[in-house]
Amino acid sequence: MCMDRILLSVTGFNPHRWQELLAQDREVVLEPDGSNDPSIRYAVVWKQKPNVLARLPNLKAIFSIGAGVDHILADRTLPDVPIVRVIDPNLTQHMVEYIVWRVMDHHRQGLAYRAQQARKVWNERAQRTAQDISVGIMGIGALGSAAAKALTSLGFHVNGWSRTERKVSGVNAYHGESGLIPFLNSTDILVVLLPLTDQTRGIINYELLRELRRRNGLGGAVLISAGRGKLHKDADILRALEDGTLKEASLDVFEQEPLPKTSPIWGNPKVFITPHAAATSNPAHLVRPMLEQMRAADEGKPLLNLVDRAAGY
Amino acid sequence: MCMDRILLSVTGFNPHRWQELLAQDREVVLEPDGSNDPSIRYAVVWKQKPNVLARLPNLKAIFSIGAGVDHILADRTLPDVPIVRVIDPNLTQHMVEYIVWRVMDHHRQGLAYRAQQARKVWNERAQRTAQDISVGIMGIGALGSAAAKALTSLGFHVNGWSRTERKVSGVNAYHGESGLIPFLNSTDILVVLLPLTDQTRGIINYELLRELRRRNGLGGAVLISAGRGKLHKDADILRALEDGTLKEASLDVFEQEPLPKTSPIWGNPKVFITPHAAATSNPAHLVRPMLEQMRAADEGKPLLNLVDRAAGY
Repeated sequence: MCMDRILLSVTGFNPHRWQELLAQDREVVLEPDGSNDPSIRYAVVWKQKPNVLARLPNLKAIFSIGAGVDHILADRTLPDVPIVRVIDPNLTQHMVEYIVWRVMDHHRQGLAYRAQQARKVWNERAQRTAQDISVGIMGIGALGSAAAKALTSLGFHVNGWSRTERKVSGVNAYHGESGLIPFLNSTDILVVLLPLTDQTRGIINYELLRELRRRNGLGGAVLISAGRGKLHKDADILRALEDGTLKEASLDVFEQEPLPKTSPIWGNPKVFITPHAAATSNPAHLVRPMLEQMRAADEGKPLLNLVDRAAGY
Repeated sequence: MCMDRILLSVTGFNPHRWQELLAQDREVVLEPDGSNDPSIRYAVVWKQKPNVLARLPNLKAIFSIGAGVDHILADRTLPDVPIVRVIDPNLTQHMVEYIVWRVMDHHRQGLAYRAQQARKVWNERAQRTAQDISVGIMGIGALGSAAAKALTSLGFHVNGWSRTERKVSGVNAYHGESGLIPFLNSTDILVVLLPLTDQTRGIINYELLRELRRRNGLGGAVLISAGRGKLHKDADILRALEDGTLKEASLDVFEQEPLPKTSPIWGNPKVFITPHAAATSNPAHLVRPMLEQMRAADEGKPLLNLVDRAAGY
């Protein structure tokens, strides 16, 4: 009997390509099959259905398909096995590019120039350089650190905020509850990359946005959000845009996805929308390191890049 | 009698701020005054009127207000004195930011996502990383080299083309007439930063754009033009956009500026327009080094950053 099957359990997209690549190395069982199968030792998941993993008697580890793991931890019957997070240079590169792109577009007044073009207006706008702008990154892990490096090399000042103390070269670091207000008070463009946990759910609300620096070279504060939609109070973001607390926003994630057609966010001229497309997991890059970790674990070696369940990420 | 007056001769904008800053050090005479004035030893100019400089009997050097000098050399009666070009870190920073901004916006499909947002379409588009894209910079001087450095640090491949051989670290260098076609054939996004000379006038024409690489990760070739409008055949750029030779363009300069309201470029959905705003000379940054060079020249020291008149830049 084969003893090294993988359970692949995803919702929301077609797992065919993942199945194909994982099957190069091991037999793959697609959920809803595989229930109670003692030969399944590893699960590869994205928003798995509740109770699916609890039924696997010999499950040794769970591999996440995306950068966040809130979708895994939401399962109240989750078995107590290690959860391996994704750390993929390709995914990091995509996220760094998204952040540089959106920071530059707000900094260089892309929305205003597009509006001028629509009205055939030839008008040069006053323009600061990156040296006059502070970008604040909330959530300064693997993705945030890489984005900070790219932004500092372009000349921006970078502030970082994390739950626990973290030093990143070139970044003005803040942490914990006491560091949050000083971090926001010295930030012109806020980039949100936080994981979704019980502590961070809904954290991007009106009161938080009020603390951003608005008397700056940009003519107002800017929000760039590419973490998780449930970090937001979308209504608060709209209120902040309405009353000038925020000048503009780039949103890649939303409280409800896909963003409903009825949402007023779609038509807000101060918002630039991408459909949760900042950085997508590419199976061609992620499957090989997953299979390598499974092989190493089979040989008794420790798994790397494990999720801290207590912290929630 | 005062022997160190400066003539300030500009057209197209208000010289008040320049006058104010130059006057910290020396007496400033505003054209049309100053004709035949033997006390004028230096001229600071932007598109000076013809014959103005020829009438100054003791003119020692001409200082350009902008990065290009074609506006000075166009004067057929230009006296044979050194012309000092602008090399300003602040102007370079502005240009690097413009290029990074426009490259990222085309690479990350900003125009397509904006069109999707207008129709409330939630659709993730296939996305390459910078490593799959080659940016080709035509005109690899001080500005082009700095832009190349920023782009390579973000992961892009960078090709450079110059009239004469030039080595720039990290750049795949081409030069001269024989290097032009191979340079274009390996370029996905063309960035034009050439000086305007008799050799480069109208160089950005349909035949040149035909040579760009179109079967690439971007879905077509892209033009970003921030040098001089007279490098263009604007009608050829429109034709190339029309028939798919170009996928998109970002244009900061135009054959005629301001771009006439009647121009079809304004309404072309494949074009992003800025009003010659990529990098503007800031008197606060440029006047001090000008005054320092004048003082050094008075002490018999050589002038730096001189224009090569034979080359035209």
